[in-house]
Amino acid sequence: MGSVRPAVVLLSGGLDSATVLACARRDGFAPHALSFDYGQRHRAELDAAARVAAAQRAAAHKVVVLDLRSIGGSALTDAAIAVPVDGHGGRQEIPVTYVPARNTVFLAIALGWAEVLGARDLYLGVNAVDYSGYPDCRPEFIAKFAELARLATKAGAEGGRFAVHAPLMALAKHEIIALGVTLGVDYGLTVSCYQADAAGSACGVCDSCRFRREGFTRAGVPDPTRYR
Amino acid sequence: MGSVRPAVVLLSGGLDSATVLACARRDGFAPHALSFDYGQRHRAELDAAARVAAAQRAAAHKVVVLDLRSIGGSALTDAAIAVPVDGHGGRQEIPVTYVPARNTVFLAIALGWAEVLGARDLYLGVNAVDYSGYPDCRPEFIAKFAELARLATKAGAEGGRFAVHAPLMALAKHEIIALGVTLGVDYGLTVSCYQADAAGSACGVCDSCRFRREGFTRAGVPDPTRYR
Repeated sequence: MGSVRPAVVLLSGGLDSATVLACARRDGFAPHALSFDYGQRHRAELDAAARVAAAQRAAAHKVVVLDLRSIGGSALTDAAIAVPVDGHGGRQEIPVTYVPARNTVFLAIALGWAEVLGARDLYLGVNAVDYSGYPDCRPEFIAKFAELARLATKAGAEGGRFAVHAPLMALAKHEIIALGVTLGVDYGLTVSCYQADAAGSACGVCDSCRFRREGFTRAGVPDPTRYR
Repeated sequence: MGSVRPAVVLLSGGLDSATVLACARRDGFAPHALSFDYGQRHRAELDAAARVAAAQRAAAHKVVVLDLRSIGGSALTDAAIAVPVDGHGGRQEIPVTYVPARNTVFLAIALGWAEVLGARDLYLGVNAVDYSGYPDCRPEFIAKFAELARLATKAGAEGGRFAVHAPLMALAKHEIIALGVTLGVDYGLTVSCYQADAAGSACGVCDSCRFRREGFTRAGVPDPTRYR
């Protein structure tokens, strides 16, 4: 069992990252889940991340404290910017829920942990289909980060290569759900809502809730989400 | 005055980054200094960063909390790894003081703040001469990060380019000091020691102290460092 290779998986506690955690296991890795306490409004996500990591028996689950509120700029961290509830900032424009350089920051810290673990594989749940407005969810960004990882690290300087896996990149939400169901993901443990309450109940009207609900409908899977 | 372009400058409070802050000013930018409270042992650095930012009249100084102790792996953040005091881990090997992916993490957060500010220029004090053992201090790493920044950001997606300035890259310590003196840097405000005490007094024997002391000697500049 000690010979199973470790991988670091970014785990937000949402539907996508729960699926990615299961993908890392499917791919033969011992998944090490990494979450961030970054001043997000929807802290119920962190509770969900812990539930998901436990349910999927992650090899470890770390929560790194990183207070991005001090740099501001996003509706998810800045109380002065309203969360969109009617599709504004949707598919074509860059949404106001974009956290500046978030995936760069999260992947960088994941890379640091990977070095400590001796892992060469990072997993994250970015997706270019439903959220094409986020620049750091695009395949070219992911590929560039893998190049950077090789230059950035001791392991890379010694000849190691890093792989950044984004298994959901080309999937629509209903395809992600269908995949997760085959891998045994319990979506009832996850929280996607941008403004979930403390117990993790979803608003049902924000962009994230809307994409999620449509996904279950299209996948033909009963929606286990607890709505307020 | 409001038309001066902003730049984000990584400011540790050490000799190098204090010089870089002065370089950003020299280059015509309004420097926005960024420091990290990342669980480093030598917290006197953060006090030094605040003094340096104030003395050089930075446009802003932010300290972002990021607890890297949770991922471990470095003598600077992990109490179980000894700080080198006799040159072990020096020029050829990667030193044990290397913090996994540190510059990647710090630049990523700097990039996030740059997006919020509308800045396109990042400055950091990496140096390939005295500390060639750190993979994330090499020119190829810096160049790759600038490429990544373009793909990672809203500004980049809209056609903007980012520049990552490492004005000390090719300078030896005494050359850095000579440059800083011409730019009016007060090195008495800075702390370089890996194990400075709470008042910022240096041990005089760690690798960092040794490089620093030799630098002042070779530059022919009186060493303003307070040693214990």
